Amino acid sequence: MRAIRWKDGVVVALDQSKLPKKLVYLKMGNYRQIASAIKAMKIRGAPLIGVAAALGLALTAYHSKAKSREGLFRELRRTEALLRSTRPTGVNLFWALHRVMEKAYWTHGDIEAVKKTMICEALKIVEEDVKLNLAIGKNGEHLLENGDVVLTHCNTGLGTVEYGTALGIIRAAVKSGKKIKVVVTETRPQLQGARLTTFELKHDGIPATLITDSMIGYVMANKIVDKVIVGADRILKSGHVLNKIGTYTIAVMAKMHGIPFYVAAPSSSIDLKTNVKNVVIEQRDPIEVLTFSGERIAPKGIRALNPAFDVTPPRYVTAIITEKGIFKPSKISLAT
Amino acid sequence: MRAIRWKDGVVVALDQSKLPKKLVYLKMGNYRQIASAIKAMKIRGAPLIGVAAALGLALTAYHSKAKSREGLFRELRRTEALLRSTRPTGVNLFWALHRVMEKAYWTHGDIEAVKKTMICEALKIVEEDVKLNLAIGKNGEHLLENGDVVLTHCNTGLGTVEYGTALGIIRAAVKSGKKIKVVVTETRPQLQGARLTTFELKHDGIPATLITDSMIGYVMANKIVDKVIVGADRILKSGHVLNKIGTYTIAVMAKMHGIPFYVAAPSSSIDLKTNVKNVVIEQRDPIEVLTFSGERIAPKGIRALNPAFDVTPPRYVTAIITEKGIFKPSKISLAT
Repeated sequence: MRAIRWKDGVVVALDQSKLPKKLVYLKMGNYRQIASAIKAMKIRGAPLIGVAAALGLALTAYHSKAKSREGLFRELRRTEALLRSTRPTGVNLFWALHRVMEKAYWTHGDIEAVKKTMICEALKIVEEDVKLNLAIGKNGEHLLENGDVVLTHCNTGLGTVEYGTALGIIRAAVKSGKKIKVVVTETRPQLQGARLTTFELKHDGIPATLITDSMIGYVMANKIVDKVIVGADRILKSGHVLNKIGTYTIAVMAKMHGIPFYVAAPSSSIDLKTNVKNVVIEQRDPIEVLTFSGERIAPKGIRALNPAFDVTPPRYVTAIITEKGIFKPSKISLAT
Repeated sequence: MRAIRWKDGVVVALDQSKLPKKLVYLKMGNYRQIASAIKAMKIRGAPLIGVAAALGLALTAYHSKAKSREGLFRELRRTEALLRSTRPTGVNLFWALHRVMEKAYWTHGDIEAVKKTMICEALKIVEEDVKLNLAIGKNGEHLLENGDVVLTHCNTGLGTVEYGTALGIIRAAVKSGKKIKVVVTETRPQLQGARLTTFELKHDGIPATLITDSMIGYVMANKIVDKVIVGADRILKSGHVLNKIGTYTIAVMAKMHGIPFYVAAPSSSIDLKTNVKNVVIEQRDPIEVLTFSGERIAPKGIRALNPAFDVTPPRYVTAIITEKGIFKPSKISLAT
């Protein structure tokens, strides 16, 4: 199941906020719609956000009526600026925008050549993402043994174009004939684990058991879980991993219980420049915590925190799996 | 706000499953209604369950038409058996039933004398619970300093007759003039933190910030929380604390971040007999995890775990506060 597609100047993407109840496809003809979908987490997952942003630039190029190179680039810069502003923490967004824009800047020739190159580059990013995930799966699958129960957090399948990062490793292990069971954290506040990961595992026929985020300690202390694999929204040179809120707690608990904690991500999630002190953790609207399905769970007047991500220091990370291989967190710069 | 009252052969209790949306009072004229309310967590919190069970026996005594002592005791044993079967983990239930039944067995004289003694004993348990909580508050409040941000899990206010255990300490600290802010975990799957604790804190004008259970690591790593206080459903001689699912994770994370982790409970929560290996963790219906506010969140065919409690080993517990004082977990038998 592809999370996103390009079709003749239209980007078609699964509305991930509606799953598993409804299978709704968004049809987006301009970058503003893409930006809105990213902000509202209808399109989500760091790799997929990068892909969607690249396609957003492609949409602007495709539909532009600019007569001059300057005119086109004005539109492109406006597109890039809006897309950049959607979500601050995942780095693939900035990586993908930069990559497509660089391609545009370096393309000489007429406007049509620039447009064509940009669209090509964006579509290349789409296809690469699928291949990267297959490579991550291949690199990581031997970490899982027959009979393993693997805990995963949030959703790393539909958060990519196809196949997934952490989920790609689980899928590769199953494909190679190993019996794997998955424990899925529901991942409040947006319930990506409960809504999306179970949906994908069910589709693949991989046994899945849902737990609340509060059951992490219980499943580890009771030896229900053998390994943890999660994705990443940004990995720093220092080996710090930024990922969905709750990841840090899982990593610490895994360490305390002697359970390996693996992170799976494409090398486009690696950020060699930013220091952990300067990383921006997106703070989303507290209403996501105060409500469920639009219904209030806490009384009016109560405040809430809603950081979308947390930071896991490298000492809690057993290894990071990218399309280039398996790396100790301290050696992650070798993966770029 | 009293969570439970006895009025002329009727037990009136807040329906805690409806809060904060609706303030509904259950009026229960027999022990079966009490048992159902406990099972469905309309009446909840280890101390309150104990109180409700005692009142369940009182209801049977009050309404009994038995002509003989044997007839009355047959009814009482049936009542006791059903109430005992409601929830296995919290120990106050068994303690309260035992206490009222012992009183009955040792009361000589006619049936009316037995009935009267039992009702008196049950009402004594109600009143004692309020006094115990005030004593716990007094004993524990000096552990909190002016300006502290205290994290609490689940609900320990309405889980008692009045005032609360962990919440009683927070209330006592505020009453003594200290400025205290509270971080409240939502406490999935039943959301007692989001629904009940915020409701009580708002009522008292104590600043409350709601977080999801997945944000534990975030608030601790970011030094948002100074101390943790939780309640307990059962405390073993070894110092192991059984409490709402999620407590163990919070305790481990607190230790990792050098944050004191306090447990507040009446001495009726202490169980000197049971070994940690033999403790029964109540496994509730997975539907509570598979749904949120009654709405399905995961696809059909997905399984879920739903342990209602977890076990926190004594090495993670800074101190236990009871009505008798403050105890190291290893010395908790001194509190009985």
